[in-house]
Amino acid sequence: MTETAPAAPSSEASRGTVVGVVDEQLDAVRFDDRGLVPAVVQDAGDDAVLMLGYMDREALIRTLTTGRSWFWSRSRQEYWCKGETSGDRQLVREVRYDCDGDAVLVRVEQLGRGACHTGNRSCFYRAFGDASGDAASSPG
Amino acid sequence: MTETAPAAPSSEASRGTVVGVVDEQLDAVRFDDRGLVPAVVQDAGDDAVLMLGYMDREALIRTLTTGRSWFWSRSRQEYWCKGETSGDRQLVREVRYDCDGDAVLVRVEQLGRGACHTGNRSCFYRAFGDASGDAASSPG
Repeated sequence: MTETAPAAPSSEASRGTVVGVVDEQLDAVRFDDRGLVPAVVQDAGDDAVLMLGYMDREALIRTLTTGRSWFWSRSRQEYWCKGETSGDRQLVREVRYDCDGDAVLVRVEQLGRGACHTGNRSCFYRAFGDASGDAASSPG
Repeated sequence: MTETAPAAPSSEASRGTVVGVVDEQLDAVRFDDRGLVPAVVQDAGDDAVLMLGYMDREALIRTLTTGRSWFWSRSRQEYWCKGETSGDRQLVREVRYDCDGDAVLVRVEQLGRGACHTGNRSCFYRAFGDASGDAASSPG
């Protein structure tokens, strides 16, 4: 049996999927009175819910056009590209929007340690009712 | 091969899990200036993200203590128990909260047609960049 060389990473695999902007779809998103929409981030591999952030229209456009997840930080009042500092980047695989247009679902390939600044893979690492406040089971 | 009778539903399977309230955990949830926290609802079976709703403290307590998912309707300004009218109920299996305490993840068994009032199983049935605005793939 001959060895096969590992496949060269495609540009999509290494950079995330550039979805592109369709104006009609963007117009279907209803930003709240702060100009924000909640964005659920889900692992495209095992479907774990990793985090929830907020996007304004510009952050959503950046997410759709760069292949990376962009958010608006309410506390810092600035844009942030997930993992740009930590290296724990999210490569966009798909972006969905809900029936009312008031929530977004970003399916990503999570690089590095995970999505959470605590070092946990998911920000939802704690379950109600669990005595330790830190459930062993994974969040999906 | 003999036929096996279907297992009788356990009280938990038919009614949802009563998680119960731990005050310290409830106090870790940071409701926004409207008194609300976004609640992501995920199918506990196949991990699909079904919908996003909002809970105030009372709706969260009801969700933790009744085994059903409760939300605060911003448009109608009233509590609603998912599926109480439609029959498309959500039986709670687990409730998680995130690192900052400003988002909740409810893992449920979705009954009936699904979570969306359009008849789709998930409210996130549309993908950006898809020409039809209605992607064939499931949202996780």
